[in-house]
Amino acid sequence: MTHGALAERVLKGERRALARLISLIEDGGPDLAEVMRALYPHTGRAYAVGITGAPGAGKSSLTDRVVGRARRDATSVGVLAIDPSSPFSGGALLGDRVRMQGHATDDGVFIRSMATRGHLGGIALATPEAMRALDASGIELIIVETVGVGQAEVRVADACDTVLVVINPGWGDAVQVAKAGLLEVADVFVLNKADRHGVRQAERELEQMLELSNLERTPEIVRTVATEGEGIEELWAAICSHRSFLERDERLSKRRLRRAALEIRDIALERYRSRLDEDATALIAELASDVEARRCDPYEAADRLLRRSAERDARQS
Amino acid sequence: MTHGALAERVLKGERRALARLISLIEDGGPDLAEVMRALYPHTGRAYAVGITGAPGAGKSSLTDRVVGRARRDATSVGVLAIDPSSPFSGGALLGDRVRMQGHATDDGVFIRSMATRGHLGGIALATPEAMRALDASGIELIIVETVGVGQAEVRVADACDTVLVVINPGWGDAVQVAKAGLLEVADVFVLNKADRHGVRQAERELEQMLELSNLERTPEIVRTVATEGEGIEELWAAICSHRSFLERDERLSKRRLRRAALEIRDIALERYRSRLDEDATALIAELASDVEARRCDPYEAADRLLRRSAERDARQS
Repeated sequence: MTHGALAERVLKGERRALARLISLIEDGGPDLAEVMRALYPHTGRAYAVGITGAPGAGKSSLTDRVVGRARRDATSVGVLAIDPSSPFSGGALLGDRVRMQGHATDDGVFIRSMATRGHLGGIALATPEAMRALDASGIELIIVETVGVGQAEVRVADACDTVLVVINPGWGDAVQVAKAGLLEVADVFVLNKADRHGVRQAERELEQMLELSNLERTPEIVRTVATEGEGIEELWAAICSHRSFLERDERLSKRRLRRAALEIRDIALERYRSRLDEDATALIAELASDVEARRCDPYEAADRLLRRSAERDARQS
Repeated sequence: MTHGALAERVLKGERRALARLISLIEDGGPDLAEVMRALYPHTGRAYAVGITGAPGAGKSSLTDRVVGRARRDATSVGVLAIDPSSPFSGGALLGDRVRMQGHATDDGVFIRSMATRGHLGGIALATPEAMRALDASGIELIIVETVGVGQAEVRVADACDTVLVVINPGWGDAVQVAKAGLLEVADVFVLNKADRHGVRQAERELEQMLELSNLERTPEIVRTVATEGEGIEELWAAICSHRSFLERDERLSKRRLRRAALEIRDIALERYRSRLDEDATALIAELASDVEARRCDPYEAADRLLRRSAERDARQS
């Protein structure tokens, strides 16, 4: 299939073409930009919900329930489960995927787990690309599920319109959320496994933390028991309420502008990095010799590298 | 204390000055480069051992034992325990640190756990800086302990001369090691908790995996029970044997050259990024508007950003 044909078939909503495109995105092939360029004018319509939290917090069960709820309104849904390519998490995620297959026979649901081993810019660049692929294929609601450990993963969640942060009852989770910078990122807190001991305490901790932080809009806290389907209606209402909030006063477009700015910067940095790796290897090796011989330190060497690359780029442009 | 005085006191081996410098490195202050520049000519003498593996594999107990073994030869030791600033690991690491305090009264041992919230380049840039600080203060053996989850963490381990990858008995650990790219990084495999069931199986899996990969030198596999001190003599011998291997045929200096090249590139990228954030905000915002209005796609926007920055840098230099 040519890349032009692939783009066309994705735009028609063909699921096999979509799956194939996402594989291309995972691998980070050189012709990807061309396909994505063809799709780009047809994006910007889908609404994106991010679900993040610690391993075992119940993100997959929640995703499963939110998918079910959205389908009751006949909304087409795409799920991207981001596998952080962490050495020790592969197995668990695979199990989660199997659980979600309850929606496997539903044409209105597209589920895909995604790793980014081949992709140069890693997860932070591949995820928005995959979201645009889903968007271009006509999917209305995109759910991005990711483990909230590590900066890259928090960034992925942050790239969504509404971000759910999932915590569990018990002491300390709220503190960890604050430590991870997730307080600023959360639009809705989901207190899952709310049938367990310590739910009131977790809620109180979270409320105290939220009082201290100076947010434009205090995120709702919703109690759920995802495995039993409890609290899902309230969670859906909280998502919709946050969406309405964003759609007032152009907040949604401002948020998306900020996102676009971050993505442009990241793509630029990634291209700059690959240029260094392609064109500056000899220069870097020379500088490394100087550094190892203690003729200059790594900071001076880096400055020289930057200067020489700028001169070269300016000559070429 | 002025920065000049700080550098001088670190060079004299004063522990309080060293601790203070590492705090500076964590915070990523603007004057750091100056202090590090003063120290740089006095570095390159310490030998660095990296210890990485999954949470719970027993890295801290192993570190503890290796420190003890090195001290029997009167080698001065510095331990850097890298806290990946992961939202859900803080507590565990703290516990590990407390356990290590057996060496607290030993003047020849410096232990420091390190997070990098403030540091712009994150863990990958801060760790070699901290290692140089230890090195300049006269410490002979540096042990860097880090959780082998995530690319940044693998990179940290890879920045050492000898890398120990810790796994446990049971099915699957070896596969996860391969998946994480740790096969290529390991100089010695430590099969810790070797008194548990499945040790032979893990060993066999690992051996098969190693046969398939085409390495210059097959890493030794050493069985240990760190909590009991078993296998530590063998582990120490494996470390020394790898060190001798590196020191033949200039392999050590080649490895350090490669490391210097990577670090120079990373510092350059980090500086490029911070320049974009300082000087190109208006341009990026303008490009983001174009992208959101679908007048251009993010790739075109990134290319424009790169072009304009190169022009500006060339004018300034």
